[in-house]
Amino acid sequence: MKFKANIDRIMGDIVYITGGSVETNRPSYSIADAMTREFFLKAFEELDLSVSVDGAGNIRAAMAGREPGLTPVLAGSHIDTVKKGGRFDGLVGTIGALECVRVFKENDYIPRRGVEIIIFAEEEATNFGITLLGSKLLTGAIKPKELKEIYSDDGESADSIIRQAGFDPSSFNKKLLERGEVYAMIETHIEQGPRLDKQGVSIGAVERIAGMETYRVVFKGVCGHAGTTAMADRHDPMLGAAEVILEMKKIAESAESGTAVATVGKITARPGAANIIAGEVEFNVDIRDAYDMSITMMAGKLHMLVERIADKYGLTAESVRIAKSPAVALDREIVSMIQDVALELGVSCMRVNSGAVHDTGMMEAVTRAGMIFVPSIAGASHCPEEETRETDISNGVNVLIETVRRLAEE
Amino acid sequence: MKFKANIDRIMGDIVYITGGSVETNRPSYSIADAMTREFFLKAFEELDLSVSVDGAGNIRAAMAGREPGLTPVLAGSHIDTVKKGGRFDGLVGTIGALECVRVFKENDYIPRRGVEIIIFAEEEATNFGITLLGSKLLTGAIKPKELKEIYSDDGESADSIIRQAGFDPSSFNKKLLERGEVYAMIETHIEQGPRLDKQGVSIGAVERIAGMETYRVVFKGVCGHAGTTAMADRHDPMLGAAEVILEMKKIAESAESGTAVATVGKITARPGAANIIAGEVEFNVDIRDAYDMSITMMAGKLHMLVERIADKYGLTAESVRIAKSPAVALDREIVSMIQDVALELGVSCMRVNSGAVHDTGMMEAVTRAGMIFVPSIAGASHCPEEETRETDISNGVNVLIETVRRLAEE
Repeated sequence: MKFKANIDRIMGDIVYITGGSVETNRPSYSIADAMTREFFLKAFEELDLSVSVDGAGNIRAAMAGREPGLTPVLAGSHIDTVKKGGRFDGLVGTIGALECVRVFKENDYIPRRGVEIIIFAEEEATNFGITLLGSKLLTGAIKPKELKEIYSDDGESADSIIRQAGFDPSSFNKKLLERGEVYAMIETHIEQGPRLDKQGVSIGAVERIAGMETYRVVFKGVCGHAGTTAMADRHDPMLGAAEVILEMKKIAESAESGTAVATVGKITARPGAANIIAGEVEFNVDIRDAYDMSITMMAGKLHMLVERIADKYGLTAESVRIAKSPAVALDREIVSMIQDVALELGVSCMRVNSGAVHDTGMMEAVTRAGMIFVPSIAGASHCPEEETRETDISNGVNVLIETVRRLAEE
Repeated sequence: MKFKANIDRIMGDIVYITGGSVETNRPSYSIADAMTREFFLKAFEELDLSVSVDGAGNIRAAMAGREPGLTPVLAGSHIDTVKKGGRFDGLVGTIGALECVRVFKENDYIPRRGVEIIIFAEEEATNFGITLLGSKLLTGAIKPKELKEIYSDDGESADSIIRQAGFDPSSFNKKLLERGEVYAMIETHIEQGPRLDKQGVSIGAVERIAGMETYRVVFKGVCGHAGTTAMADRHDPMLGAAEVILEMKKIAESAESGTAVATVGKITARPGAANIIAGEVEFNVDIRDAYDMSITMMAGKLHMLVERIADKYGLTAESVRIAKSPAVALDREIVSMIQDVALELGVSCMRVNSGAVHDTGMMEAVTRAGMIFVPSIAGASHCPEEETRETDISNGVNVLIETVRRLAEE
């Protein structure tokens, strides 16, 4: 294949954007975010692409195809990061898409369909605790008016923060992305898990993106003095929480899918003093699997567990679902195409599922969608230890370029 | 017996001090604390007592005895409360001691030994997380210079806060209470547990005050993405914490003393997000029993448990003792005297242990010490639901008055 990514140029862009730092702090709507947008807009201008920015700050930069009127192929990812995140999460896919168009242009190649670079805003939930906000707004999964009821930790509304960054959420009312407007969506992304690295495989052709349900569980017992209340007289919600935490591990491990996970990463005891038996313990249970049926079964087991444990310790219990995103099956033909391309490029490739959610999962609601994973060393993610080898980044972008080319010729 | 408490006067004082409210917020060195001190100082002036205030704000008000030169009998308790505490914790013993002297004075009774009302500051650890601060300073268990290294949650030093309230901690250097200066110490206090109330008994003659050790345990694992890290690849410190919480319950329940308790009332997961496997979980384990040997054995089991569980989940563990107060056996003769007095007054009485710590436990290091408990309805403590029947308060103060009288005639 004649179109090859220039890995030095890609790494140069990434080092430029991250200022040479490994630890990366670039939430959407921040100054670092604005500077990165400027980098991309300048690059798009140099490539003579037509740029549009929507009401969440998602950017689309279009290269026209040979046959006007055909729906375009989109390639891209997000540019925001978690706090204290790594360098490659998001940038591999956005710089990769930029590289794709640069390579096409410098080879004077004009594909049959148009190719658009898409850069999603606020994928990481850093500002408002809601993942995929940019792609959810673009595809209508979240309505612009809901942004007035979504708040940052500082209590400012998403609507206000997005407006201050210079975007107008209400402009979505006329500009939702509808099925039929786009031919396909391809995203390259780091795996964020250890599977590819463990297997020594360079490319993952993503079959499924895991679904997720998050529950907030509150056990209420009887607050008491840690010294004067005999063990037999206690109604201690901390014991209930501990038992749910250990049981959810067993439930995930015994799920038939073999891919289920359950996590309690957040817990609060109230009043929260060493010498007071807690009156109330609140914690979140995050349940994920590549299959919705498996998530539903685990959620059912969680409900029964919470009731049984409340009875056991004389507690009252409340469990409420606070987040849900369905499992997504990506386009079978694109999955096969990615494998074929990797084979032809002489790069190792395997089919994998994504445990993390991705904008491309939202895009699947309106178009054919595919994802290309590159290995995360030791699976480290959302931390400065996140790392991917340059050869793998190069392979990932090469597979992206050729996959985009094939789709754009369809 | 001719000296009888006036329960209407006692309740009147308590209602006056609490402003008629059930929920009570009166940490030491607050405005509410200063107003309560003023109430007592005025009452002491009216009774013509000689008053001294020490470097922590502990107040002593002395009624001279018939035979000058004899060491005095002390009666009292603390006047500070936890946040959102109840009305009677502390005040039953301080107003009770005031009532004792009032009754002696209005009956023109001058005991052989002097009688002193003692009001302790900062018993509840509300400001600095350290219980019994006033009595610890008075008896030398904490050195005044240490106050510069003890901080409030707002990061202000205890030394600074105490000085701002008008007391001079450095004055302790010459005025520690030494063994031989006081003949005996008697405190009336609410039980803070359910035992007396359950048994329908009005008076508890306290035999032992439980000792306590508090450990801070930190498990460190590997922070990770809740969606992309397979269950088998995790090193989740939350699982370790959950297992310690449940095991410590079993360890306390199986202690041979039959009186052991263990509590985890405070837990923090870091970074503490629903969708991130915690990298670190910190929690406190509070261990108490009436016998130091039992506490030592439980602490040993905790250490072994923490190591075993760290190994099991691939975590690193750290456990540090952050507080310790030894179990105290109160004076046997005074325990018997309290029982005799109750019998003669026709009031039901049983021997009990105290699960909570008390200033009288610190005073035991320098003098003979005894405690009189009155029932807490349903054992509620450190909350607005705390309640004690007026008849029990009346009985408790009557037993106090007669016990003080007998000791003061020895």
